[in-house]
Amino acid sequence: MAKSKFEYVRLFESDDRCLPNAWIVVRVDGKGFHRFSTEHGYEKPNDVRALSLMTKAATSVMEEFKDICLAYGQSDEYSFVFRKETQVYSRRSAKLSTNVCSLFTSAFVYYWSEYFPTSRPLYPPVFDGRTVLYPSNQNIRDYLSWRQADCHINNLYNTTFWALILKAGLTPSEAEQKLKGTLSSDKNEILFSQFAINYNNEPAMLRKGTVLVRRRVPVAIASGGTREVSQIVQEYSDIIGDEFWNENSHLLTLT
Amino acid sequence: MAKSKFEYVRLFESDDRCLPNAWIVVRVDGKGFHRFSTEHGYEKPNDVRALSLMTKAATSVMEEFKDICLAYGQSDEYSFVFRKETQVYSRRSAKLSTNVCSLFTSAFVYYWSEYFPTSRPLYPPVFDGRTVLYPSNQNIRDYLSWRQADCHINNLYNTTFWALILKAGLTPSEAEQKLKGTLSSDKNEILFSQFAINYNNEPAMLRKGTVLVRRRVPVAIASGGTREVSQIVQEYSDIIGDEFWNENSHLLTLT
Amino acid sequence: MAKSKFEYVRLFESDDRCLPNAWIVVRVDGKGFHRFSTEHGYEKPNDVRALSLMTKAATSVMEEFKDICLAYGQSDEYSFVFRKETQVYSRRSAKLSTNVCSLFTSAFVYYWSEYFPTSRPLYPPVFDGRTVLYPSNQNIRDYLSWRQADCHINNLYNTTFWALILKAGLTPSEAEQKLKGTLSSDKNEILFSQFAINYNNEPAMLRKGTVLVRRRVPVAIASGGTREVSQIVQEYSDIIGDEFWNENSHLLTLT
Amino acid sequence: MAKSKFEYVRLFESDDRCLPNAWIVVRVDGKGFHRFSTEHGYEKPNDVRALSLMTKAATSVMEEFKDICLAYGQSDEYSFVFRKETQVYSRRSAKLSTNVCSLFTSAFVYYWSEYFPTSRPLYPPVFDGRTVLYPSNQNIRDYLSWRQADCHINNLYNTTFWALILKAGLTPSEAEQKLKGTLSSDKNEILFSQFAINYNNEPAMLRKGTVLVRRRVPVAIASGGTREVSQIVQEYSDIIGDEFWNENSHLLTLT
Repeated sequence: MAKSKFEYVRLFESDDRCLPNAWIVVRVDGKGFHRFSTEHGYEKPNDVRALSLMTKAATSVMEEFKDICLAYGQSDEYSFVFRKETQVYSRRSAKLSTNVCSLFTSAFVYYWSEYFPTSRPLYPPVFDGRTVLYPSNQNIRDYLSWRQADCHINNLYNTTFWALILKAGLTPSEAEQKLKGTLSSDKNEILFSQFAINYNNEPAMLRKGTVLVRRRVPVAIASGGTREVSQIVQEYSDIIGDEFWNENSHLLTLT
Repeated sequence: MAKSKFEYVRLFESDDRCLPNAWIVVRVDGKGFHRFSTEHGYEKPNDVRALSLMTKAATSVMEEFKDICLAYGQSDEYSFVFRKETQVYSRRSAKLSTNVCSLFTSAFVYYWSEYFPTSRPLYPPVFDGRTVLYPSNQNIRDYLSWRQADCHINNLYNTTFWALILKAGLTPSEAEQKLKGTLSSDKNEILFSQFAINYNNEPAMLRKGTVLVRRRVPVAIASGGTREVSQIVQEYSDIIGDEFWNENSHLLTLT
Repeated sequence: MAKSKFEYVRLFESDDRCLPNAWIVVRVDGKGFHRFSTEHGYEKPNDVRALSLMTKAATSVMEEFKDICLAYGQSDEYSFVFRKETQVYSRRSAKLSTNVCSLFTSAFVYYWSEYFPTSRPLYPPVFDGRTVLYPSNQNIRDYLSWRQADCHINNLYNTTFWALILKAGLTPSEAEQKLKGTLSSDKNEILFSQFAINYNNEPAMLRKGTVLVRRRVPVAIASGGTREVSQIVQEYSDIIGDEFWNENSHLLTLT
Repeated sequence: MAKSKFEYVRLFESDDRCLPNAWIVVRVDGKGFHRFSTEHGYEKPNDVRALSLMTKAATSVMEEFKDICLAYGQSDEYSFVFRKETQVYSRRSAKLSTNVCSLFTSAFVYYWSEYFPTSRPLYPPVFDGRTVLYPSNQNIRDYLSWRQADCHINNLYNTTFWALILKAGLTPSEAEQKLKGTLSSDKNEILFSQFAINYNNEPAMLRKGTVLVRRRVPVAIASGGTREVSQIVQEYSDIIGDEFWNENSHLLTLT
């Protein structure tokens, strides 16, 4: 049983190390979650339990990978930003995407019952993953802006769409027809005039998505008083404008 | 909130389509499973519940991906062989590895309680994944032989190692010392003379690992009689020699 | 002048080794040769001097790289087929394409005056290069068939096109108009009926392109008699059908 | 002669587009130029004719590729820096390296007789090429510093080595022995005390290598007076320190 005779097949594995000094993003995306959310009775337009479970899974990923400096999630997706200089897994692309994707998926199933205590999933949910490189700070900011703009556009649409259905009694196709070709301002107007909803007062988590970062937070100690520890905290900040980045300038500088 | 202004970042995603007309293997591997198996009380040298759960998860993967023609698993790893001509996900490497890896992980957690009914995992288990190409039939056979030879070598070692500990009362380091530098024949001899174990009579699943293939099997139909349906079946065949491949020549030919 | 301080930049070079056990083709293509051929007074539809110079340059490449087992050229392009098992430059893709491309270009300029003795090029001619992998024997045969079919289609068109211009006095746009939408059989008929040209009697080098292979050929030795040496010979064989490959079966088998 | 039947082989070509927003460097390197320089009677330690021919070839490359903003050459190598935003050949790596490499080689042979008028090369010279990406301005500066530091180290060594041979009558192995383990300061001292050479007074082209950049330069016009045109000029600047980059800050900013 000469193992060595066959071991040459290892040479067929390719070297997929990421370019040094570039931001590494791993994004996980729910596979077929439109159907999954319907089958599992997700509330519309947003299910806070599902979003919280996503954030729980993402937090597990950040706890494991210390070199993830920021994560951003919305809907059925989460993006993980690794420090530019990370040497985790020698920056091997497939190692990064599969480990993040597997841990995210695992935690999603593992913690399901904390958020949906009365049922278990009908089948194992799946997330795909990809690794993308961004050379400059502007690029990584634009990447995150792209995802947050996507969150805004979809959530404004979905909020209006489901108000028309749930509160005005339209059918899905009637609601779709009504929204066809409308601008953001039109949807804001429909929400306000027809449903007395000021979209800007909707919960920030739904409008902005969830940002996970590490912060020094005070914790009580046994002897009395507090000490600071690093914790992963969730925020619902605007990450398109400059304010967040000015206040968190350490995120974009070498450590 | 001009989404389009940011959308240029999509261009940073690279095209990772696999070379056409090559066998695609996705292998998933448990991350830190030495520790995981200890913490979860896996029986030594082999835990049939754990191996069965692995095979259950692998079967879920094969049910989803019809273009996987064969899977081979042993210990905490499973290899999935896609048809040479598969066009699943346009043969994109990361799509294949992350989807397989995520579904495998998800099913592993999801079905855990069927195999370990009295406990749940202490934390979410993780598997990494990789995609490797093999151009020729000989290459893909040698790949599978490599994994099965690995199974044989490790299982013979582990069987002897744990017999020395569990039946002869050695400490792990004493057992390790005793086996240092021994050949296969030496270990067979220890098992036979000291523990009356004929290694060849050990369960094939442990010695050979598990092969998953699709077979036409008869199923009873309501009106009486049977009809054939395609099912994923597990076998513990030798896949190093020619016999398996002669009997399953369809696996290596175009469909 | 600390060199080591900067040497980290070497880590930005990526590993581009080709998949083992796959045929490696490097194809070089003239850049802007439509214009180049006009400016240098190439005879139409074919200039035998130019084709011979291409073959001279290709022969220089084959003399340098012993692992090229076959080359095929037509018009302003040449394809070089490396043995499946070659380890030249550790199979690094860019090393292979740039070395072949540079040597081909260099030889083309260097030997120009042997084929165009009365003039020198007006400017340095350029060829681009690419490396492509083909896993199976059928794939590499189909690749070569693709190039030879391209030669046939273009040469039949060009032969007819230039006969219409040079012998029937049409303008280029009149000739183009006349050939628009015609089949091969139409062009054969035009050549035969209008110009008494039986296309099949045109020189094989023009109809089939040039195949370079290594052959054992007898050479005279000083003491009288002959001995066989390996030489690169040019042939104008059909490489689409089976005959060539049956007669040269060594080309597709491991050495 | 169904071309389409074979055209599927085009799908085997891979997409090798470079990451956007990263500096692209193509470096060409003489193949076997130690031997080539000896066989062609290059003067030692430096042959100004050969260096000038290299720069002539590099200038041809820059004239063709307007998106090369800077080139740096020394010994038998030249590096070409493309603008970060270049879309030449859709940033395809192999297209860039083979085109640059082919044109450089072609021009080297083509213009040979202008620099070596009494002889032609004994055989076609070859240069290999590679494409490397550098994400940040610091990285690209460090890359160029690496090459210029290499120039300095080699030229100081060679100047001393050949002085020992040509002026002090040592054999090559005696000279090598004498220089083993010496520091820069030791070599400077040998040059000064033994040969009255102040290394810093050696020609800048030899000590620093050649930088090619585009400058607006005044040219006389027919009607009298001058107008500015963009020209490729050669300079022998220090490109390790900040001064060059401060004076040429446009090179590192978007255009």
